[in-house]
Amino acid sequence: MAHKVIFDTDPGVDDAMALLFLHRHPDIDLVGVTTVFGNASIETTTRNALFLKREWGFDAPVAKGADETIDPSRPHAGWPTFIHGDDGLGNIGVPDTVDVPLDPRPAYQFIIDTVRANPHEITLVAVGRMTNLALALRHAPDIAHLVKQVVIMGGAFDVPGNVTPAAEANIHGDPEAADIVFAAPWKVVAAGLDVTTKTTMSRGFLDAMAEKGGADVELLRRVSDFYIKFYSHAVDDGMLVHDSCACVYVVAPGLFTVRSGAVRVVCGGLADGQTIQKPDGMSFGPSEWDGKVSQQVMVGVDADKVLALLARTLTA
Amino acid sequence: MAHKVIFDTDPGVDDAMALLFLHRHPDIDLVGVTTVFGNASIETTTRNALFLKREWGFDAPVAKGADETIDPSRPHAGWPTFIHGDDGLGNIGVPDTVDVPLDPRPAYQFIIDTVRANPHEITLVAVGRMTNLALALRHAPDIAHLVKQVVIMGGAFDVPGNVTPAAEANIHGDPEAADIVFAAPWKVVAAGLDVTTKTTMSRGFLDAMAEKGGADVELLRRVSDFYIKFYSHAVDDGMLVHDSCACVYVVAPGLFTVRSGAVRVVCGGLADGQTIQKPDGMSFGPSEWDGKVSQQVMVGVDADKVLALLARTLTA
Ligand SMILES: [Ca+2]
Ligand SMILES: [Ca+2]
Repeated sequence: MAHKVIFDTDPGVDDAMALLFLHRHPDIDLVGVTTVFGNASIETTTRNALFLKREWGFDAPVAKGADETIDPSRPHAGWPTFIHGDDGLGNIGVPDTVDVPLDPRPAYQFIIDTVRANPHEITLVAVGRMTNLALALRHAPDIAHLVKQVVIMGGAFDVPGNVTPAAEANIHGDPEAADIVFAAPWKVVAAGLDVTTKTTMSRGFLDAMAEKGGADVELLRRVSDFYIKFYSHAVDDGMLVHDSCACVYVVAPGLFTVRSGAVRVVCGGLADGQTIQKPDGMSFGPSEWDGKVSQQVMVGVDADKVLALLARTLTA
Repeated sequence: MAHKVIFDTDPGVDDAMALLFLHRHPDIDLVGVTTVFGNASIETTTRNALFLKREWGFDAPVAKGADETIDPSRPHAGWPTFIHGDDGLGNIGVPDTVDVPLDPRPAYQFIIDTVRANPHEITLVAVGRMTNLALALRHAPDIAHLVKQVVIMGGAFDVPGNVTPAAEANIHGDPEAADIVFAAPWKVVAAGLDVTTKTTMSRGFLDAMAEKGGADVELLRRVSDFYIKFYSHAVDDGMLVHDSCACVYVVAPGLFTVRSGAVRVVCGGLADGQTIQKPDGMSFGPSEWDGKVSQQVMVGVDADKVLALLARTLTA
């Protein structure tokens, strides 16, 4: 049976690859795309989602999401245009407006309605800041028990962050929202930098996919060029496919090893946005993790198989 | 040439083994023992240092150190008597008073005087809270340039803590002091839980050492029994020899792999006492690690060789 997925995203270059994977995979039924600010403004990420819907022809509606952190008093940092380009898609020249209709609802309401209409069937795949998910929980706490699972790209558990030595970008962008998501009584599985930084796609691999995959993958290749150049400080002519890891987990969880335990997010101070897990079975003194629900954190990945599954799916 | 070592310690069961190693190793010249509160009150840890001086007959003077955190407004937590016993040495019945004279100076002054008298020759091995070292820096910042190196047992870098999921006990006991020590312009090498939790000594190994090592090691065996029972939740009939790892590093640094980068300590909040390194060569956005001196963090250990060196030294 297909996995019904709502994709919460801030496209974003690696978001685009993840979206095409969800659209193409035969066992995934993409029932909605919700946008969030992060890699670019909410106007830009929403426009990009509509652009990709038009180019790739997926049916799922697109609903526009949050444009500020769940605690609106948090100061706003600039957009990472040096990673994703001014247009959020590698400066390929996305048109300013795309004539594709938006779902009329805000993202959090779209999530609530869709989860209630498909009880125990929806997998939320969230690969941007966790703001829409936290808003959905705030407006409708009952959905926590109606969601099948939540798979996120976010966090850095046993490895350094990427925005600061402590924090990964999606969590750092809205730590309070992430802490709400990890604390909710639903199943969260986190693909953090522990696994995504081990999953590197070379330019040659992407080129080969583009050759076999037609116009859809060729667009992905064009979008990724700027991002690959950014990653030259960390990756030799290639890119980290962060967001795709979360999507691959939905259909192939066996390619990852996970560790169970409550997760808290540091809000404020030196470690702002850091994700810290209390591994189940280890003993500590009394702490603020006590009594929190155990969540799953990916700590290992078979990267070659993840890349192979991406290639098979995108070029099928 | 022998390494001149000041041992800053809160004995403490694993402190006792470390102290005997320093006393026994032919390439180490133990020039002083300074005490700090932590595993027990300062009265108890100082009494224990004097007791071990009497039992083992080392010449180094003992100077009494701090009895409160460097920020005195920090609330005090109880002593970990469930780990080290009410007497701090496994409830073996240490006499209330030991008729061995104390150095008249407070620990921080002993450190300052000894470092100035032996410029560029002193290795500080600190295996309790970092309070005495921070006080020495506060009273005499010049010593940072006169110390050969500082080797500490403390921190949890790529692994969970032990007091909380975020923090290791020595750092958690005085985070502000530890942040001062890591920020000072001297060379710090940290043996954190990343290596010490991989260095497990079984009861059989300890018994065999005691059989060969005479009365000195027999005392160590008696002291360790309570501690081994505490560790049964984590170790199968054995103990973690935390503090000895720092001492072994002094004479055998090649048994450890280290990672270089600035280290900050979280002070307050959820992650209070967490140590976070910014690994050199990785790029991040602007952060509170910028401009701080790179320090060395142990991330790998050849535990079998560490144990073998301990055994050779203690039974020689
Ligand atoms: Ca994203
Ligand atoms: Ca100690």
